[in-house]
Amino acid sequence: KANVFIVMGVSGSGKSTVGQLLADTLEIPFFDGDDFHPERNLKKMSDGLPLDDSDRADWLQELHQLAQAALVQKGAVIACSALKANYRDQLSQSIEDAVDFIFLEGDEELIRKRMEARKNHFMSPALLKSQFDTLEPPEKALNISIELSPQEMVSAIVDALHQKSSIGLIGLGVMGKSLCRNLARHGFQISMFNRHLQDVEEHIAVDFKAAHPELNKAKAFDHLGNFVRSLERPRKIMLMIKAGKPLDQTLDRLVPLLDEGDIIIDGGNSHFKDTHARQKKLASQGIEYIGAGISGGEEGALKGPSIMPGGDIEAYQQVAPFLETIAAKDLNGNACCSYIGPEGSGHFVKTIHNGIEYAEMQLLVEVYFLLRASGKNPDEIAAVLASWQTEGLDSFLLEITIEILRKKEGEAWLIDKILDKAGNKGTGNWSTVAASQLGIPATMIASALFARYISSFKEKRMQLASIFEEEAPVFECNTQDLREGYAIARIVNHCQGFELLAAASHEYNWSLHLAEIARIWTNGCIIRSGLMEMLIPPLKHTESLLLHPEIIEHLKIGRSSLKKVVLSSVAANIASPCFQEALNYLNAMGTSTSAASLIQAQRDYFGAHTYQRHDQVGTFHTKWKNTNHD
Amino acid sequence: KANVFIVMGVSGSGKSTVGQLLADTLEIPFFDGDDFHPERNLKKMSDGLPLDDSDRADWLQELHQLAQAALVQKGAVIACSALKANYRDQLSQSIEDAVDFIFLEGDEELIRKRMEARKNHFMSPALLKSQFDTLEPPEKALNISIELSPQEMVSAIVDALHQKSSIGLIGLGVMGKSLCRNLARHGFQISMFNRHLQDVEEHIAVDFKAAHPELNKAKAFDHLGNFVRSLERPRKIMLMIKAGKPLDQTLDRLVPLLDEGDIIIDGGNSHFKDTHARQKKLASQGIEYIGAGISGGEEGALKGPSIMPGGDIEAYQQVAPFLETIAAKDLNGNACCSYIGPEGSGHFVKTIHNGIEYAEMQLLVEVYFLLRASGKNPDEIAAVLASWQTEGLDSFLLEITIEILRKKEGEAWLIDKILDKAGNKGTGNWSTVAASQLGIPATMIASALFARYISSFKEKRMQLASIFEEEAPVFECNTQDLREGYAIARIVNHCQGFELLAAASHEYNWSLHLAEIARIWTNGCIIRSGLMEMLIPPLKHTESLLLHPEIIEHLKIGRSSLKKVVLSSVAANIASPCFQEALNYLNAMGTSTSAASLIQAQRDYFGAHTYQRHDQVGTFHTKWKNTNHD
Repeated sequence: KANVFIVMGVSGSGKSTVGQLLADTLEIPFFDGDDFHPERNLKKMSDGLPLDDSDRADWLQELHQLAQAALVQKGAVIACSALKANYRDQLSQSIEDAVDFIFLEGDEELIRKRMEARKNHFMSPALLKSQFDTLEPPEKALNISIELSPQEMVSAIVDALHQKSSIGLIGLGVMGKSLCRNLARHGFQISMFNRHLQDVEEHIAVDFKAAHPELNKAKAFDHLGNFVRSLERPRKIMLMIKAGKPLDQTLDRLVPLLDEGDIIIDGGNSHFKDTHARQKKLASQGIEYIGAGISGGEEGALKGPSIMPGGDIEAYQQVAPFLETIAAKDLNGNACCSYIGPEGSGHFVKTIHNGIEYAEMQLLVEVYFLLRASGKNPDEIAAVLASWQTEGLDSFLLEITIEILRKKEGEAWLIDKILDKAGNKGTGNWSTVAASQLGIPATMIASALFARYISSFKEKRMQLASIFEEEAPVFECNTQDLREGYAIARIVNHCQGFELLAAASHEYNWSLHLAEIARIWTNGCIIRSGLMEMLIPPLKHTESLLLHPEIIEHLKIGRSSLKKVVLSSVAANIASPCFQEALNYLNAMGTSTSAASLIQAQRDYFGAHTYQRHDQVGTFHTKWKNTNHD
Repeated sequence: KANVFIVMGVSGSGKSTVGQLLADTLEIPFFDGDDFHPERNLKKMSDGLPLDDSDRADWLQELHQLAQAALVQKGAVIACSALKANYRDQLSQSIEDAVDFIFLEGDEELIRKRMEARKNHFMSPALLKSQFDTLEPPEKALNISIELSPQEMVSAIVDALHQKSSIGLIGLGVMGKSLCRNLARHGFQISMFNRHLQDVEEHIAVDFKAAHPELNKAKAFDHLGNFVRSLERPRKIMLMIKAGKPLDQTLDRLVPLLDEGDIIIDGGNSHFKDTHARQKKLASQGIEYIGAGISGGEEGALKGPSIMPGGDIEAYQQVAPFLETIAAKDLNGNACCSYIGPEGSGHFVKTIHNGIEYAEMQLLVEVYFLLRASGKNPDEIAAVLASWQTEGLDSFLLEITIEILRKKEGEAWLIDKILDKAGNKGTGNWSTVAASQLGIPATMIASALFARYISSFKEKRMQLASIFEEEAPVFECNTQDLREGYAIARIVNHCQGFELLAAASHEYNWSLHLAEIARIWTNGCIIRSGLMEMLIPPLKHTESLLLHPEIIEHLKIGRSSLKKVVLSSVAANIASPCFQEALNYLNAMGTSTSAASLIQAQRDYFGAHTYQRHDQVGTFHTKWKNTNHD
């Protein structure tokens, strides 16, 4: 297919030289636009007078016809300043898809020096300023720096024109970098972009490419337009950008460069409602937007994360080959990546994944603290936990906890050096908010969140501890009970998490497949575990794990151990919110007749909210007070 | 001050008769607009031809001059059809403030019959339809039904013109009705409006007025325009409407009828961010909007609620005389109503009030359930609780709980008949969401919310209970410890609630006065109590009650009792989430070195989130894994 390449830029940027060289390389004709000026334009220029738009109209029309003629032959390279957007529109109108603009970019000072060194040129250097004043830098052109030699410039152009990448990634932080390497290792031709921030983020993409041999075929950019131009259409662009404002700023710059049918994948931790809003907004511009939760941390991203994509299913199918290839694989070799559902469902599922993760981490914190209070040192605790791995409690988080506890700095355990103020990045908060709003008692997620918050008040804790003059707690409970209690508490956490997913699925009409979600969480992600494997079959038949016979059997057996753990921790004055909420949940859910009737009576008493009864149908209101106050 | 009253309506509605009678009553001149028609208009009408707008222009100009002339005398009544908004604009232009339109309103059928019965009138009944087609019913006129006799119509007009109300209230539900009676009892001249919904809500205001002698001077409306017209300017209108859509629908109808400087008070449970958004929107139209939390339930609203108004302070000062008069009074006789702060701060404070209320109610539920499990019946439990009232634990919620437990239906306790599925209306959810988002561990509010949610899964609870085959729990703990534990848990709940207010105050720059908030919560509201009185002095000096010496003393003494309660409830397999979270909070806040360091290590392990150290300043990252995976 023939193409016309218009080499553009201010006078003196080297259009003729580079254009001729490019044409020779591509073996197609070259035309210098200046040769097509009418006589009066040439006269004006040599008199040192700038051209006006009416001077240019006929000239541009001439070049446009030249381009059209070339397209039915082998194509051509045309050198033409094309400084304004509307000149470029005139040149390419009706043949946009076959015209590529190549912008030779350089600063005024450099070009001025070059021009002053030139002799037989008809344009006076004094006009250069007017050229720069006129210049409207193109958004969709290929930008080539004139600091390169002409031969290097042509090589860069040919390279950019020939090998288009099949997918691009924006944002080379920890996760973005790992995903790039993962994609490249799987043989995908990728483009990588990181913004250029003077003195803060410079040459990130280029340096990153240079540091990793597997990226030798990847293209590295800090020019967004060239990055976009380097992608096959419809373009597939993955964003690994901090959610919120930074993401929106990136979208504001990116979207004008895209074309209808292009697909953006937001691989960050965006709020699911924001994702839905962005989807709707971009859909009106013909751009597809996939909100894909990605879990696995740095290593997961590199070796195979768990991916939870949500959005339009047809758009997903176009990016599935990439995502499913780079994802982790489950025990049967299937990708831990599966279409989640419409709207922001992918990001919602990732949010709840993180909520479950919060409680899983907090449970390990409680186990660790209790064992520490029983007199064991980190190595001894690691040994206890290592023995659990082989007893059906294997999980990624248990595994890394063991490694962490064994890590030493000289003679000391590193864990003892770390400040005990836990951070958070929002997804635990969002999970708790979702539980509140959906009416689901995900008490363990909430407790884990609040435990992190409590830890952050380090100074208050130290003050209060000194006032309470507490002795060091002594925890007495055998590790067998602790293990059983931990196992049961984890089950309760997963029951609550999947209840939350089910509630959201109903509320938002997402038709989530819970068993499939459990399956893609069996590898790659932070909460992968033997338990997750075990939950897949029950989730094929129920949304309420708590009532599934297999789960019930576990709960029946382990409940008394959980109770012992709680009793021992309370006796030792140790906060164990996640263990306690697990037990409370089982106790409360196992209570057929609760005292919540009193709440209904109170609400009816002071607010006339009415109540229902066991023995009659309807709503009832009682005049509770004996005396008449009116 | 002279006024011109323009009696308007379609031909045949009785303008001349009513206008003359009104003029006689007010002792001012009457002019029949028809007498000022030019000859050609009269001719057209008697020929049965409708007038067009150019016919009318001179005529309206004539009447306008007539009105202007009357205003420098005693004023006048003018009868004029004035069917279109722009006719009315022509009549009143430049003298809008001195012109009142009185719209005689009736349906076409009724007027047709009357006209057909009339003889010497120059307009043919056939033109009536064109009059109705032309009619643009006025929004700001006083509407008077022609179904009344002329004398009744004049009485209604005189009544409406003379005694304007100083405040109006929209929405006559449980709370709205009580507030109306409260205002009337304090001698305020009020207007009351409730929408008219065919077959659902009819004549609500009129029937309500008739049922209560103290409302004999109040004005009752189901016509919104007349309601608005009945108010002194600047108008003060209190909305007691269900938050959300119903409120916005009411505002959509109300606001076009208001004038710059009018003040709306939203006395419902709106979300504080919605209140802020409404304030900003209405401010752009010159309307003030106060978001006022009101607590006290039906009885509080009647006898004196606690009121938490937020918004523009100058707008508040204009409504303060009403709100502070009807509010409850504290022990020193000061109103339990105080300006809270800007934006939606009043509604936020009310939200957290309700959050604290959730946990206070849940604690009583847990106390009740534990005592029931100790073998006591509701009367015996009431006796225990009654003994607590005199031991410094007095509170409104304790008081009503005692009454509730004593309530019998025949031989049976009513509490045993009530279905144990607790309802909620959003504020507990909003409080939990606020805690999550502000980073404050308000664990007791969250637990109370989730306890209500758990109660709502009645069917699942019954299923699980039957599977667990639990025996009836037996609680063993002396009531002295239960009382002490309850007292301490309440203190923790209040500590957390005020921490939440302090955090919001900082986040949103509200400058909340915590001691003043505690003061207005000492009477009128649902969480009024002896404890609240006790918290005022500490809150004058600290935002962090937990560290105040007086509070610490209580905590030191009662903590072991709280621990006994928790141990006994866990031993008895009874869920006691609020008691447990209270104890966990004290244990966790009293731990100087927690295990949250493990969370930081885990986050750094899988996500390279970095951590801080005890022994060095800076952020650190460790390569935790021994093997190199790259």
